[in-house]
Amino acid sequence: MSSITSSMPMEDQVGLLDAVDDLYDGVVVEMKDYMDSDIFIPLLRASLSQWKQQGKKGFWIKLPIQLSNLVSPMVQEGFRYHHAEPDYLMLVRWLPNTPDTLPVNATHRVGIGAYVVKDNREVLVVQEKSGGFKGTGLWKLPTGVVNEGEDICKAAIREVKEETGIEAEFLEILAFRQSHQSFFSKSDLFFVCLLRPQSFAIQKQDSEIAAAQWMPIKEYVDQPYNQKHQLFKYVAEICRTKSERDYVGFTAMPMATASGKEIYLYFNNRDFQQTL
Amino acid sequence: MSSITSSMPMEDQVGLLDAVDDLYDGVVVEMKDYMDSDIFIPLLRASLSQWKQQGKKGFWIKLPIQLSNLVSPMVQEGFRYHHAEPDYLMLVRWLPNTPDTLPVNATHRVGIGAYVVKDNREVLVVQEKSGGFKGTGLWKLPTGVVNEGEDICKAAIREVKEETGIEAEFLEILAFRQSHQSFFSKSDLFFVCLLRPQSFAIQKQDSEIAAAQWMPIKEYVDQPYNQKHQLFKYVAEICRTKSERDYVGFTAMPMATASGKEIYLYFNNRDFQQTL
Repeated sequence: MSSITSSMPMEDQVGLLDAVDDLYDGVVVEMKDYMDSDIFIPLLRASLSQWKQQGKKGFWIKLPIQLSNLVSPMVQEGFRYHHAEPDYLMLVRWLPNTPDTLPVNATHRVGIGAYVVKDNREVLVVQEKSGGFKGTGLWKLPTGVVNEGEDICKAAIREVKEETGIEAEFLEILAFRQSHQSFFSKSDLFFVCLLRPQSFAIQKQDSEIAAAQWMPIKEYVDQPYNQKHQLFKYVAEICRTKSERDYVGFTAMPMATASGKEIYLYFNNRDFQQTL
Repeated sequence: MSSITSSMPMEDQVGLLDAVDDLYDGVVVEMKDYMDSDIFIPLLRASLSQWKQQGKKGFWIKLPIQLSNLVSPMVQEGFRYHHAEPDYLMLVRWLPNTPDTLPVNATHRVGIGAYVVKDNREVLVVQEKSGGFKGTGLWKLPTGVVNEGEDICKAAIREVKEETGIEAEFLEILAFRQSHQSFFSKSDLFFVCLLRPQSFAIQKQDSEIAAAQWMPIKEYVDQPYNQKHQLFKYVAEICRTKSERDYVGFTAMPMATASGKEIYLYFNNRDFQQTL
């Protein structure tokens, strides 16, 4: 906070919140230490007035959960929620008199299903202890949720290892599906990944997995549930096709970016390479 | 709220919050009307105690932004944030004495880039008024963010229409990339979509688009920026490959689900069909 000088105009007298500019003509305030709302609100109002005058657009405030005392006062000052994580809430107010072009929140969770298949055409399948398939007897591919900041190709390897103890190498995305309203109002992207096992002795995870085994592909595909439900049937038949005939999915290629981040591009690399 | 009867034990005397069970042994309370925290907290404590005894796991409370007065009291009762949207905050508390297995929040935003190409091998390109490429002179594919609840294949059609006025049909996903830390801690999935134009007269959107035109593919691909940056080069070359030679991406097939939702499965349908 800036220091308070009695000769300065009112707004400067109460100081402004510490802020950094963002790339979209906005300002971001990251609150850290506890502050009483009687201290906070005058600072907020002075900052709002100053930054509005300067033509700033989005005014973001990140409040750690320890500062939940400031949520209600901020809402009364015209801020709305943008997103929240377990330990903080991000609030925002659009300052100009033009339509709000603030970016949307994250809309999707991302999951993987791992088709891990041996040279002898046996596929790694599990039965889960909870969730929608509990007690149905369905043998399914190991599945899981991609962690924050995790690559899809690495999540598939991690989930297989965690659930079954099997080490495996990622080869291809065979298919993916998008569905909506899968968790509150959020959507879901689910990637079916082909992996090649590098170990074969199953050690199942006790907390989530009721049973795990290697099963002939035909037996996996022919399960009544998979034959009866269109989406499951397609996924199972795509897996079978991959193992029996010629089916090309998307491989993962790491790309260097200007900022030094490594990101993966997924595409049909066989068709791409063949035609270079 | 349940009615209050003086002969009942204390917990029932103050009543419980209205709740519905979820599929994971949890309870969800959706608050609607304004309530003072002096009324709310006794109800919350009685509900907590009752549901803990019943072996409930996740205790969810959805608070509309009009009830922001209850955020701080709830945090003091051991609730944490789960996620937020502009008009509500979802808080949660894990009741058992076992590790918290609550589902993660949405982790990804989803975007599209549209490769709209005419039979004469001209591609639809734009220059944007703001964002990272403003003023660089780069002609790029129309891009945009997939709305909440929107299918990727439909978002591509919508964005092309909005930005350029061109009507187009979705054909295939040619490639996609995942990147992290793209918006606060969130990740980003970006799908490169092939579309066939059904109209040809460009009417650009004035608010976001500085210029739009049809450009020979070679000219689009050969722009210095696209040649210099690995990710852009790959995407451009995959687009060129698709137009010049044999490259198969993932088509979108609608699937009926048991719940009546229509969801899309994306896969290499040429390879799949050829081998049936």
